[in-house]
Amino acid sequence: MRSLTFVFILLAVAVHGATAVRPVVDLILTNAHVVTLNDQREQFVPGCVVIRGSTLVAVGPAALADGYTAHRTIDVGGDLVMPGMVNTHTHAPMTVFRGLGDDVPDRLRRFIFPLEKALVNRDLVRWGGLHGMIEMIEGGVTTMANMYYFENEVGRAARQIGLRAIVGQTVVNFPAPDSPEPYGGIALARQLVAEFKDDPLVTAAFAPHAPYTVDAAHLRDIARLSAELNAPVMIHLAEMTEEMTSIRRDHAMTPIEYLDSLGLLNRRLIAAHCIFVTDTDISLLKERDVGVAHAMVANIKSAKGVAPALKMFNQGLRIGLATDGPMSGNTLDIIGQLGYVAKVHKLDNKDRNVMPALHVVEMATRGGARALHLEDRIGSLEPGKLADLIVIDTSGTHLTPLYDVYSALVYAANPRDVRTTIIHGRIVMEDRRLLTVDAAEVKARVRALARTISDSVAAGIK
Amino acid sequence: MRSLTFVFILLAVAVHGATAVRPVVDLILTNAHVVTLNDQREQFVPGCVVIRGSTLVAVGPAALADGYTAHRTIDVGGDLVMPGMVNTHTHAPMTVFRGLGDDVPDRLRRFIFPLEKALVNRDLVRWGGLHGMIEMIEGGVTTMANMYYFENEVGRAARQIGLRAIVGQTVVNFPAPDSPEPYGGIALARQLVAEFKDDPLVTAAFAPHAPYTVDAAHLRDIARLSAELNAPVMIHLAEMTEEMTSIRRDHAMTPIEYLDSLGLLNRRLIAAHCIFVTDTDISLLKERDVGVAHAMVANIKSAKGVAPALKMFNQGLRIGLATDGPMSGNTLDIIGQLGYVAKVHKLDNKDRNVMPALHVVEMATRGGARALHLEDRIGSLEPGKLADLIVIDTSGTHLTPLYDVYSALVYAANPRDVRTTIIHGRIVMEDRRLLTVDAAEVKARVRALARTISDSVAAGIK
Repeated sequence: MRSLTFVFILLAVAVHGATAVRPVVDLILTNAHVVTLNDQREQFVPGCVVIRGSTLVAVGPAALADGYTAHRTIDVGGDLVMPGMVNTHTHAPMTVFRGLGDDVPDRLRRFIFPLEKALVNRDLVRWGGLHGMIEMIEGGVTTMANMYYFENEVGRAARQIGLRAIVGQTVVNFPAPDSPEPYGGIALARQLVAEFKDDPLVTAAFAPHAPYTVDAAHLRDIARLSAELNAPVMIHLAEMTEEMTSIRRDHAMTPIEYLDSLGLLNRRLIAAHCIFVTDTDISLLKERDVGVAHAMVANIKSAKGVAPALKMFNQGLRIGLATDGPMSGNTLDIIGQLGYVAKVHKLDNKDRNVMPALHVVEMATRGGARALHLEDRIGSLEPGKLADLIVIDTSGTHLTPLYDVYSALVYAANPRDVRTTIIHGRIVMEDRRLLTVDAAEVKARVRALARTISDSVAAGIK
Repeated sequence: MRSLTFVFILLAVAVHGATAVRPVVDLILTNAHVVTLNDQREQFVPGCVVIRGSTLVAVGPAALADGYTAHRTIDVGGDLVMPGMVNTHTHAPMTVFRGLGDDVPDRLRRFIFPLEKALVNRDLVRWGGLHGMIEMIEGGVTTMANMYYFENEVGRAARQIGLRAIVGQTVVNFPAPDSPEPYGGIALARQLVAEFKDDPLVTAAFAPHAPYTVDAAHLRDIARLSAELNAPVMIHLAEMTEEMTSIRRDHAMTPIEYLDSLGLLNRRLIAAHCIFVTDTDISLLKERDVGVAHAMVANIKSAKGVAPALKMFNQGLRIGLATDGPMSGNTLDIIGQLGYVAKVHKLDNKDRNVMPALHVVEMATRGGARALHLEDRIGSLEPGKLADLIVIDTSGTHLTPLYDVYSALVYAANPRDVRTTIIHGRIVMEDRRLLTVDAAEVKARVRALARTISDSVAAGIK
């Protein structure tokens, strides 16, 4: 009896000792091939990541996990664990229109704008937005920069589903679905900034549509408000031939120079596309610390051209990857962009050695974080950064064997290889099951909206 | 009691009557969105396909199924049923090397040929070949045209797994893994033709590597043997700048004209790549009824250029899509090619309206069948054709909503959307489970081979 008591005391001491030296954390992913994308591009095989709350506490060899007591530990069975991808420019609610009007000319003015005028409302934005966010989470995107109408619905949906987002309220010089008055978007954007002040996931932004759909006076207003409120600005820039011609004609400048003259070219700006940029423009974008969203798939599908992203990347600009909206690029995952970015730049530069796989993965992760000026918080797996990360199933035939992880991601992976997505320390998808939203309900709502849209298109819109 | 007997008699008559008028078939897929790719490009929603043995008996509205008694009926729940895709040029066993030496210059002579010389043997070809075929079946490919060494192993593996194949024994002017003598491949090809004579799935072919690695005398021999044995010939053609230069220098001809002068340009030839072809070459390829394998992804990854496939397609050439080998394009499914083919031709022609989605799907199916001169048997879903077809899951977020099936396939689908693959009337994959091969064993073998390959590469090959 006495010896049994002694054993109990020993046990109690041992347990107490162990817990005393082992910090308690929320989640550990272990038995992982950890691809950190940190400054040294370290990989740990087998490795682990340790998460407390919204933050990465430790990233390193699997043995590190022994130093912690975790509420939950997931053995990922050798799969890849890497930073979540950043989609630097999209229009998520447009998923409801996906696949309409492909392969037809002058879509923007003859098709998309009338369609939006007739059909876009708060309900469509909410359900279409959630649908797009589900697709992004399923495809390994943990942060999006979105531009649309009724953008507060997008922000609320992002907050609900748990996707990190910059949400930009569209501003245009014509009556919009969410504003009977031209430029009503500016007031809506101010409300948006107020609504999402200090939100840990969602940042509100101004989204003037383009330099050819917002006049100089309003662009100046937006520059001033952006500085006052410290709110980002997103814009389509140097994307359209009509844009290039009209700004050259009216201002004798490139679109980049024009925005600079209005005070918009600064560290709060995220410029989407930048296809038609001169070397001087590139220097200016760098000097002004502007973020660039490179939307390769959308740009070539519309035959606009290939943005000089290789030059921008090599010169150290803040450049990330983007899908654009689902009427432009059709899908919203970044994995589907990787192969295009690598291969089309090789083709465009007539050199198979440029834009190697590693650089493409960098643009998809830390590059995207830099483009959104969030690199102090996301874009790589490092202690102290936010826990935005994904698990990629490497068991697929197409990923076997796996000699080089960057090559596999860029030249062979597809978005369905993403198993698990964690944002801000919260598991939003596990083994392909969405945990923060009723995905079936969203799909049913989107299908119902699609029936209405089909009928409207059949009836000639108007 | 009497009335009960009467009911039994009535029932017996009814059952007898029904079976008497209902032909017995093996398999019906019903409740399908059937995309026939027939001459009228008909779709049936809801539709069905009816299979007896290796052949399609009926294709049409779902109600058609009521006219048959089937051993098995599968309700596909509204998913797409379409012709299997044709991969018109690949090197399946090279899956074991996938991802090695990406983004490096002069790979063929400095990397691939030495690697193959050191490591390729019968065992590697068998397991690597099966692995590649699994990937194709998982990605919706039902017919492949393959070129490699130890090609009888490839043919046997195709027969086992149930993949339709043209298998081409490589012929080169240097000692090869399967032949210590230069040109030993010619004798091996003759044996191959004998081994697969009258095989319902596998057709043997000669595969002279290229006009710059096989001399004129041997190319003439191959032309003669191909005619004698009625065997196809596959070759890499107009692909490399060194090829263009040397043939111009030595023969004052284009590679197409050169092959024509040797008697090789005819309806038995399948020419891979055809990047550098003149308008005269295109006319000659058409006139001689040559099949062309368009390998867009591989061609741009190596920065070689964009083959004028749009022109060839529009002029009615026999042109299909191809992945090339997994060291060139990395993946072996054709779905992954579709978006590239649509978008890069738009970019190359500076016109967003060219190469619409429908034309791309045509090239992937009936076009590929035409390129292999198999269009009387495969390439569309029509009564009398062979039952090579796939089921595509349309429930994915990225495929919702689905307004246009061709647009969805080309701009949004990925190979993991393929649910079920049927070849020659045999279900080879059902709900993503391989039924004709132990996929886990193949993966384990490939991983073991990959360890040996890694060690050899680390040791500097040799």
